Amino acid sequence: MSKILILGGGGMIAQKLARALNTEPACRGAELTLFDVGFPPKGAAGTQITGNIADPARVQDLVAARPDVIFHLAAIVSGEAEADFDKGWDINMMAMWHLLGAIKDQHDASGGSYVPRVVFTSSIAVFGGPFPDKIDDVFLSAPQTSYGAQKSACELMLGDFSRKGIADGVSLRLPTICVRPGLPNAAASGFFSGIIREPLNGQKAILPVPDTVRHWHASPRAAVGFLRHAAALDTEVLEGRRALNLPGVSCTVAEQIEALRRVAGQKAVDLITPTPDPTIAKIVSGWPRDFDPQRAIALGFQAETSFEQIIQVYLEDEMA
Amino acid sequence: MSKILILGGGGMIAQKLARALNTEPACRGAELTLFDVGFPPKGAAGTQITGNIADPARVQDLVAARPDVIFHLAAIVSGEAEADFDKGWDINMMAMWHLLGAIKDQHDASGGSYVPRVVFTSSIAVFGGPFPDKIDDVFLSAPQTSYGAQKSACELMLGDFSRKGIADGVSLRLPTICVRPGLPNAAASGFFSGIIREPLNGQKAILPVPDTVRHWHASPRAAVGFLRHAAALDTEVLEGRRALNLPGVSCTVAEQIEALRRVAGQKAVDLITPTPDPTIAKIVSGWPRDFDPQRAIALGFQAETSFEQIIQVYLEDEMA
Repeated sequence: MSKILILGGGGMIAQKLARALNTEPACRGAELTLFDVGFPPKGAAGTQITGNIADPARVQDLVAARPDVIFHLAAIVSGEAEADFDKGWDINMMAMWHLLGAIKDQHDASGGSYVPRVVFTSSIAVFGGPFPDKIDDVFLSAPQTSYGAQKSACELMLGDFSRKGIADGVSLRLPTICVRPGLPNAAASGFFSGIIREPLNGQKAILPVPDTVRHWHASPRAAVGFLRHAAALDTEVLEGRRALNLPGVSCTVAEQIEALRRVAGQKAVDLITPTPDPTIAKIVSGWPRDFDPQRAIALGFQAETSFEQIIQVYLEDEMA
Repeated sequence: MSKILILGGGGMIAQKLARALNTEPACRGAELTLFDVGFPPKGAAGTQITGNIADPARVQDLVAARPDVIFHLAAIVSGEAEADFDKGWDINMMAMWHLLGAIKDQHDASGGSYVPRVVFTSSIAVFGGPFPDKIDDVFLSAPQTSYGAQKSACELMLGDFSRKGIADGVSLRLPTICVRPGLPNAAASGFFSGIIREPLNGQKAILPVPDTVRHWHASPRAAVGFLRHAAALDTEVLEGRRALNLPGVSCTVAEQIEALRRVAGQKAVDLITPTPDPTIAKIVSGWPRDFDPQRAIALGFQAETSFEQIIQVYLEDEMA
């Protein structure tokens, strides 16, 4: 019987992942543990443990149960990491350090037999401009946000602990996940979802950047697919490069809005109000716009191929 | 009067750097402090402080003196970091974390006015294969050694603390420094120097890899030049990409040996005995072979342009 641990298990993607695992025949009988600072009401089935990922003792306890698969999604988002420098490094980097230390302790105590699969949600924020038109699989990580630097440092640690056979890690550089359901979060990327979600629900939305901004998106459903695919991946074929750029949809905000118009009409589009926010615009201007993620595609990772499909996923999964 | 702190100040390059700074007119009256676990006899002039860089309290004390320039050369070498995993991460990564934390404390206490220049010796070990023929300035860091992963993680931290205006950092991805004077150290790259240095001194040398191995070299004199140039660099022009690939000489071991033959004759070459070492060969096979370091060259960094010049520097600086 396998044990699965989801760190940051209270978050939106984590909850969807947990629900998917709970209905997956291959996971029947698996023990699912979710750890986070808090959980939504009516959360996904599984053992909920409340605590702070930045507390090494808590992480030690969680790993002492020797989960076979650890999904590490715990993070504070880009906007908050930019505003609270110390907290960002503490949660987004040092927690990975303590997690890997805890895994090493169990690995050593097991005589080397405990080597959990660790699926880590990194981000395209590991990249910073200037960019080529499409970012390929060998482009440097030169982040221009604390969030991106923290994710990139985690990739390096996870890669080296994996090379040494202590963990068996995969870092997924997630596209911006869109359309996020529910309330806005503190991510600087939040508006990419807001300008679609709010109008679809008859609410006004604010657009803080010019509509010429191009960005890289995938749906929450695609994100859950990435995570499950990474959990089952033959990591030998990664040949030591365990951080992957993932497939997604490259489009401008204007193209997002045009897709919204086709799906929900002009009355939805009319609910969007341009309200420039220089802070958001500055952060987003340093983000990638397009990718050529050949490795991940060859490895079988799949995302949507148009922004209309991304909106359709929102309608099916959140408004059905 | 400026204050200069050299972390890892007992090492070979650090000692040469200290001597160069001591004779530099612009540094007249500067306070030079060297920190290391130990120092050579007849070391360079300056205040010697003995201690462990991995001890956060010691680092706090050193930074409390608010040095204007901090050269961070403290590290354990690649072979040792591979053999002692915990020690490698502790010295090569966590020490940077504590250093930056100490700088931030002083920065905050000074009301934001204390922003030291930090020159960090990174390494071409941040790169891992497969490689292009020449590594350009936007090639990914995918290290295949712990040493490389640790150096790369430090670059990310220093980059982000610099972006936030807490430090003013430059990371120098040093070529393999060759010909090192003195006794062999534990670096997997040690033989690149040994096969030149030992024969020049009438001693036998061991060659643990095939002579087809191609690698990237610069002299100790060039390394000191890189460090001094980085200390005076206008970092604004780096535009947030503070880790630099540096100029050097790309040549095979056979070409190194041929240069030795031209400088010191066949009797020197005859002192080299091929003695394959699979561990060394495996580590070195994951190292870069050639670069196209356009940014650093445009910024004025200079190295030798042939391996014969590198041998000549050894003869002038060590055997004169």
